Amino acid sequence: MKLLENPEAMRNLSENWRSEGLVVGLVPTMGALHEGHLSLIRRARAACDRVVVSIFVNPTQFGRGEDFETYSRPFERDSALLREEGCDVIFAPTVETMYGGSSLDLSPSGERVYVEAGGLGEIWEGEARPGHMRGVATVVTMLLNIARPHRAYFGEKDYQQLKVIERLVRNLFFGIEIVPCPTVREPDGLAMSSRNVNLSPEERRAATVLQRALSAAANLKQQGESSVADLVAAMREVYDTEPLVSVQYAAVVNADTLAPLNSLEGGPARAIIAARVGETRLIDNIKL
Amino acid sequence: MKLLENPEAMRNLSENWRSEGLVVGLVPTMGALHEGHLSLIRRARAACDRVVVSIFVNPTQFGRGEDFETYSRPFERDSALLREEGCDVIFAPTVETMYGGSSLDLSPSGERVYVEAGGLGEIWEGEARPGHMRGVATVVTMLLNIARPHRAYFGEKDYQQLKVIERLVRNLFFGIEIVPCPTVREPDGLAMSSRNVNLSPEERRAATVLQRALSAAANLKQQGESSVADLVAAMREVYDTEPLVSVQYAAVVNADTLAPLNSLEGGPARAIIAARVGETRLIDNIKL
Repeated sequence: MKLLENPEAMRNLSENWRSEGLVVGLVPTMGALHEGHLSLIRRARAACDRVVVSIFVNPTQFGRGEDFETYSRPFERDSALLREEGCDVIFAPTVETMYGGSSLDLSPSGERVYVEAGGLGEIWEGEARPGHMRGVATVVTMLLNIARPHRAYFGEKDYQQLKVIERLVRNLFFGIEIVPCPTVREPDGLAMSSRNVNLSPEERRAATVLQRALSAAANLKQQGESSVADLVAAMREVYDTEPLVSVQYAAVVNADTLAPLNSLEGGPARAIIAARVGETRLIDNIKL
Repeated sequence: MKLLENPEAMRNLSENWRSEGLVVGLVPTMGALHEGHLSLIRRARAACDRVVVSIFVNPTQFGRGEDFETYSRPFERDSALLREEGCDVIFAPTVETMYGGSSLDLSPSGERVYVEAGGLGEIWEGEARPGHMRGVATVVTMLLNIARPHRAYFGEKDYQQLKVIERLVRNLFFGIEIVPCPTVREPDGLAMSSRNVNLSPEERRAATVLQRALSAAANLKQQGESSVADLVAAMREVYDTEPLVSVQYAAVVNADTLAPLNSLEGGPARAIIAARVGETRLIDNIKL
């Protein structure tokens, strides 16, 4: 397993692989790897000739007052896990390398060219975390251009991010296959997240309410024709029982555009939820 | 010479060339080719194994009330010229192919992911043509992703566009060499432009004032240490003599950031000018 920090070296290696006819898979991560990440890497390992895992805690997708500085960075542990999984290259650039001398300001008056997610980046997570989806779209563009994969793997846990990236690749013609992978959960249903380690034992128990609320909506849907209002009410009924959990949004949306739905007729739907559990912000979602 | 309309076919062809070790050059155009374009194509032809010329009048870089509908589209003539120049592929997609079913609205609330030029896209041309540089940055990203060149050729006539694209490629790690090519001029100094055909004979004569104003600034600079105010005044003195020409801006700027300069010390400078000549909008620039 190689460790690369230099974008040019990464691109040259990938271009060489490509010219040999090898299929390159990329798994972009911010490190602090858990079973969710490992499931993506195994998918990539099974389908690709070469697997690149990027580890980069991207400052431009964190807002002011968010946890960029305190985000867990257990590089040695991550590195050992990746070696076990048969990763070929860890691409782990510095912030300085990725953003050069120029500022981290992604804004219309800033010094940088950046990628804007459009309306899909303004709702839900975009509203709760202004600039977040812009930072995601920009860093993913950079990583795709550097690692030059045929396929890139993203978890469904960050569902809105996945949809933004699918749209990015389609609208801008990246010619890369985006492979969505199912959320991996703890035995009690909590979606795996690098931020779960920040939960106190009480918060950790309370946090399962996100998944329980989503399941209530999905079960109601499966039982027959429920209204969106019924599903939302069912979610609320569940999460209202947890005083440690402060829900930011819980909604039933169009599975592609993430627009709020009035009715479950007319295409695939998704239930999405975001909440603060103490100082920790968690998100989850379920197919309806 | 091949004519391709399909992005997938274009990308596949280019990827095949790349895997054979061939160097691919791209010359993005909106058609209505003139000697300026042909000079780019000759540069590409001399330095690359395969030359792709794209012809696409990109709607998202035109503002409301601008000349998208009336922009000259002499495809047969362009095609004949490109054949003579030894172009390997014309990539000429439809608007429908490039922008799919989704809207042409590149805005924070729109349905598309797009590329934003930042502050460099807000000044000068960006101020005169809101959204123009966003449209340019977006379509160039699409074309680079489709044609997958090693090198792409742009004229210095559209100087701000060139700087936006250089920054785009650098900030987003496209790994493509941007080759700037000198402005080609008519014998009387007018910069070649597809829009020159729209000028009446009187306007055509008056239009040379752009280049004459720029030359006045450059000459003054060469004569010794002039102030920026002197250079700007020299330009004004020249263009004020032409009642048919309405100047929108004439400025001395940092050659890389296009920030207005207070002094000529401290790095390369450029004089830039934009004007309306009747219904036609023209731009030009000169190295100082």
